[in-house]
Parts: sequence; structure tokens; C-alpha cells
Amino acid sequence: MAGEATRVMVAVNESTIKGYPHASISSKGAFEWTLNKIVRSNTSGFKLLFLHVQVPDEDGFEDMDSIFASPDDFKGMKNRNKIRGLQLLEYFVNRCHEIGVPCEAWIKKGDPKEVICHEVKRVQPDLLVVGCRGLGPFQRVFVGTVSEFCLKHAECPVVTIKRSAAETPQDPIDD
Amino acid sequence: MAGEATRVMVAVNESTIKGYPHASISSKGAFEWTLNKIVRSNTSGFKLLFLHVQVPDEDGFEDMDSIFASPDDFKGMKNRNKIRGLQLLEYFVNRCHEIGVPCEAWIKKGDPKEVICHEVKRVQPDLLVVGCRGLGPFQRVFVGTVSEFCLKHAECPVVTIKRSAAETPQDPIDD
Repeated sequence: MAGEATRVMVAVNESTIKGYPHASISSKGAFEWTLNKIVRSNTSGFKLLFLHVQVPDEDGFEDMDSIFASPDDFKGMKNRNKIRGLQLLEYFVNRCHEIGVPCEAWIKKGDPKEVICHEVKRVQPDLLVVGCRGLGPFQRVFVGTVSEFCLKHAECPVVTIKRSAAETPQDPIDD
Repeated sequence: MAGEATRVMVAVNESTIKGYPHASISSKGAFEWTLNKIVRSNTSGFKLLFLHVQVPDEDGFEDMDSIFASPDDFKGMKNRNKIRGLQLLEYFVNRCHEIGVPCEAWIKKGDPKEVICHEVKRVQPDLLVVGCRGLGPFQRVFVGTVSEFCLKHAECPVVTIKRSAAETPQDPIDD
């Protein structure tokens, strides 16, 4: 029952709420669920792998495979403002560091659902955790859902963590 | 990070292979995955809840809510042969006892997918683990899948564990 740590990939993204440059509510929920219900006190038994997929835009953001495993990795980086999504990963890496859970974090560019499944294939985690907004079927049609795609296509066990009703923002499409 | 144990419900069923009165391959896979990847050495941090849903038949099997939490609970039972599915639960309870993971086990009668979701609502586990055969879309049409139904309808996080290719029996519909 010892052996290599259980590698849990957590797909994280930024909030869609304007003027709120932080992790989405459902990403935080997925992360906290993983810590509280799975990792618990067994911090050395797990390794968390944070993947942030950045949708390409006009900013000409470039792919970045650099891996961040501790808060120090974020310090003294040149041009850190140019790298979107970095603050997001810093949040999760810092939290893991406080608790003592080993982690890695990286950013990829592309269609989130496709890239997540591609990274699962490459990295082969033991479990993929994806937050979701928990929208009804009618709302889902308009936003598409990354979690449903991953459930069907990711080549590893997947658990989706629904946002709690108490945390749903005014517009449930926001996250 | 201490607090109440994480309660993991594992839905288990009997093998469909003739003359093999044991747990199905996918049930065992789901159970072993839970132990190896989630519980690991943190045996006091988890409680496993084994639910076996018995499809009603001509034998006139009666519903049974009795709970089995240790191997002793199975000893000295009267008419134990009359209670189908008991040997199945005994297997899982014995394994947990050996390892030192607290558990409970019970049997319900009905349509497995409906009953599992109903029991999730009643018992409110932190996670439901369901094994599945990992059939292709063509094969699935003919057998229906409990795991897909649970993914959609169970009111808790669900993880489905696919049977490994190496363990697939001659007829992949068998389990």
C-alpha cells in the first residue's frame, strides 16, 4: 500500500467574472474537494498535477511547458506579466506548499477539453478531477461542458465536482 | 484535514460468468483501485460502504437492510444459503478487515442503477465508485450501463473504473 504517490491531475481555469482575476469557483471547489476528501492528512501519498489550458487569443500567448513545483519557481521570473494564467497556478502551488502536498503545475494553449484529454494521455495520472458548474441541460447546450467531454474521452478515471448551490454566482453561466 | 472519515460507496455485483459465484471482475477492479489509489495507507481516514443490488427473481428474495461491518457478522447466520449475494459482501468485508479499513455492507433489491442512485441520496457518501466493463458504444447498446446512469443521476461525485483490457473475459459482455 506504499509505493509511488497517487497522481491526481486537477484541471483549473480562471474565473469568468469580470474584474476578478482569480481561479474559477468550480476550480477551487474541485481542488478543495481533492484535499479534504482524498488527500486528507496523507500528504506524502499524493502528488497534485495542475493543468491550466489557456484559450489562444490575439495576445499571441505562447505555449509554455515550464513546470512550477514550488512557490520559489514563481519568484524572479522575467516578464511574468506577459504570461497569463501564471497567477492562477501560483495560487494552487502556494496552497499545496502550505499544506505540504507535492505538486506540479503547467500551462498549455488550445481547446481546454481536447488539451486536457491529450495531457492525460501523455502524463497518465491515476485520477483526473474537473470542476463543473452543475448547470441544467438547457443551460449546458449554450456553454458546452469540458467535464462531460473529459468523462467520455479521458483515458483515466475522472471525477467531476459540481459547484455547490451556495456558491453559484448571480449569472450561473459565470464561474 | 482530520475530521470525519471520507465515506466511499462502492457498488458491487456478482460475476456473470457461469459457475463462478464471486464478485464481478469490474467490481473487484473498482475496489482495488479505491484501496490502492485513494485509501492507500490512510486506513483510518476512510470508510467503505459496499452496496450490492440484487435483481429480483423467482426465488422470492426479500429485501435486506442488515449491515455487515466485520467478518464476524457473517458467522453463525441462520439460513445463510438463502441469502444470495452474501458471499459477495463477505469477500469485500473480509478484505477490508485484513487491511484495517472500516466498512459497512448491505444488500438491496431492485434495478441496480435506480437503487444505487436512491441509496446515494439516502446515505450521502463523499464519492461513489462504480466498476464498468469499458465496452465500446456498439456493445453498450445491448447491455445498458449502470455506470453511465450513475454518472448522470447520482447526487454525489462519481468515478467509474474501467476493467483493464488484460482482464476482459472471452466474451466481453461477461464480467
